[in-house]
Amino acid sequence: MFKTVEWKKTGVVMIDQRLLPDKVVYRTYKDYKGVANGIKDMVVRGAPAIGVAAAMGLALGASRIKAKNLKAFKREFQRISNHMKKTRPTAVNLFWAVERMNRLMDESGDLTVEELKDRLVEEALRIHDEDIEINRRMGRFGSRLLKHGSTVLTHCNAGALATAGYGTALGVVRSAVEEGKKIKVFADETRPFLQGSRLTAWELKEDKIDVTLITDNMSGYMMKKGLIDAVVVGADRIAANGDVANKIGTYSVALLAKAHRIPFYVAAPTSTVDLNIKTGDDIPIEERSSDEVTHLRGKRIAPRGVKVKNPAFDITPAWLVTAIITEKGIIRAPYSWGLKRLFVGKV
Amino acid sequence: MFKTVEWKKTGVVMIDQRLLPDKVVYRTYKDYKGVANGIKDMVVRGAPAIGVAAAMGLALGASRIKAKNLKAFKREFQRISNHMKKTRPTAVNLFWAVERMNRLMDESGDLTVEELKDRLVEEALRIHDEDIEINRRMGRFGSRLLKHGSTVLTHCNAGALATAGYGTALGVVRSAVEEGKKIKVFADETRPFLQGSRLTAWELKEDKIDVTLITDNMSGYMMKKGLIDAVVVGADRIAANGDVANKIGTYSVALLAKAHRIPFYVAAPTSTVDLNIKTGDDIPIEERSSDEVTHLRGKRIAPRGVKVKNPAFDITPAWLVTAIITEKGIIRAPYSWGLKRLFVGKV
Repeated sequence: MFKTVEWKKTGVVMIDQRLLPDKVVYRTYKDYKGVANGIKDMVVRGAPAIGVAAAMGLALGASRIKAKNLKAFKREFQRISNHMKKTRPTAVNLFWAVERMNRLMDESGDLTVEELKDRLVEEALRIHDEDIEINRRMGRFGSRLLKHGSTVLTHCNAGALATAGYGTALGVVRSAVEEGKKIKVFADETRPFLQGSRLTAWELKEDKIDVTLITDNMSGYMMKKGLIDAVVVGADRIAANGDVANKIGTYSVALLAKAHRIPFYVAAPTSTVDLNIKTGDDIPIEERSSDEVTHLRGKRIAPRGVKVKNPAFDITPAWLVTAIITEKGIIRAPYSWGLKRLFVGKV
Repeated sequence: MFKTVEWKKTGVVMIDQRLLPDKVVYRTYKDYKGVANGIKDMVVRGAPAIGVAAAMGLALGASRIKAKNLKAFKREFQRISNHMKKTRPTAVNLFWAVERMNRLMDESGDLTVEELKDRLVEEALRIHDEDIEINRRMGRFGSRLLKHGSTVLTHCNAGALATAGYGTALGVVRSAVEEGKKIKVFADETRPFLQGSRLTAWELKEDKIDVTLITDNMSGYMMKKGLIDAVVVGADRIAANGDVANKIGTYSVALLAKAHRIPFYVAAPTSTVDLNIKTGDDIPIEERSSDEVTHLRGKRIAPRGVKVKNPAFDITPAWLVTAIITEKGIIRAPYSWGLKRLFVGKV
């Protein structure tokens, strides 16, 4: 099994998701700037995986800080944290991970600089391991929503490649399959970056889970044909009212699902929930380079100089979401109530 | 200005739409089998253009028939017609054109074989010229539906490249622009064949019409942002009840438009209307090779051996269609009544 993000003696190692499925290449980053670039350039992507990579990047950066006194060390760590936060704006797990690392430092009392460095590495590793455990728990809750013999449509990649392992949306599928249910998956190819065809189809095939690839504009047709029983996707950020930021195209899939009375589920850990953001309107949407649309694997597929829009995410309003699957349980509308309860204990 | 399909002394000449916009290559077909392959392999595509190419292919085939007596000639022409009809199943203009050429022959009385050959060439040229004239008339009707300053979303290519010239959906845009209206166009890239990015964006840029390219999964987002005022698409076949077969993804765009209260218009000549087909359920949907989804310009973009669905068209039910723009006028629901009137004279 592949590893999405890993902490090694040599540095932070990430599978280069831009080259999959043609080539399986692992890249080793020896400083935090390399990790930051890897996040920005989408060597690693997927909200939970970005969070893990950012935490490891901070641990790596901390371990290389030369300062001997705590105050200088903390100032330097602050600078590294700010650099990391500038990589990608939409997925909140990035900011969540940076904040968690900083909180550890703030609460670490009278440790030496060297002890602190060790603690930060431990924390990054903990975030990594917790993520897999969280996905497994989420999977067990989500599996209850999938009947034996159903076909699940998913958009983008919310799988092992989008997390430390196992996956959020695909974790739900994996969990149902492990429980012995027969589940088929339809994967939208997810232009422009093709996370669906390159990553989701690949990791499901590796796991011998029945997957059929379609282009993004075929999902409505498949729903009308009665071929889809449920939609399960991940999330990059969930606002306090239940609005969901996720890969561009998710909103269209959710509307189409509603029109065909197909349940639309979002699988995401609590680290994706951002109670500081009231509604989806306040979530920043990253606009990426037009080259992603006009070129494919380096080949031009559109006329030179054509105008392009390339928002990387969209907002699915809460009313289109049938349920949110978290590691603490399944949340249904009214979301503002259920999401708040996530942070005070039980669901 | 480029020519989509042209009759020349050397044969039938078509611009190779698979190579646009990188390369502008004209291919000359010297026999009907070449033209048939050109239709099948999508050198030429778009319902009206397929009709024109098929008519010219038949004229070319007829001119090469060796038979000296009329009965043998007609038998041979029948064989050629059947070959042509097997190229693509969904666009009805193909069958319409073949039928029109056969009707001419049946009604030609006591001509010699050589005279008949000339008549068939004349008829093919007439179909070509009429198509351009029809598009211009359609454009003038359709233009009434577009306000100054509006932004039109279109899917696939229903432009000069999909017709003998001028275009159906893009003819409506061209007509509005010629009348001095300020019109912007958003073009869906239209996977898998990329007619939107390769053809629509290209021909609008050539015409200096303001065009912005998006991936198919962005249209819902653009509608929600209030950036789209109307959708205009072409059609491959329209059933007697107003259901519309068009490029895969059209159905999703129509549903999204309905959800956002954006008018959804279909621009198509009467040759696209098939009163023999009661509803869209009876229109055959072509399933094309999985390579179109797993490869892009010869490059693999999905894991080896992955299952794929690749329906080339879908059906948009009549209730999602705000109006059908024809060369005889604008038709609104109830379509069964309005479409029938197309064939008895006035609208």
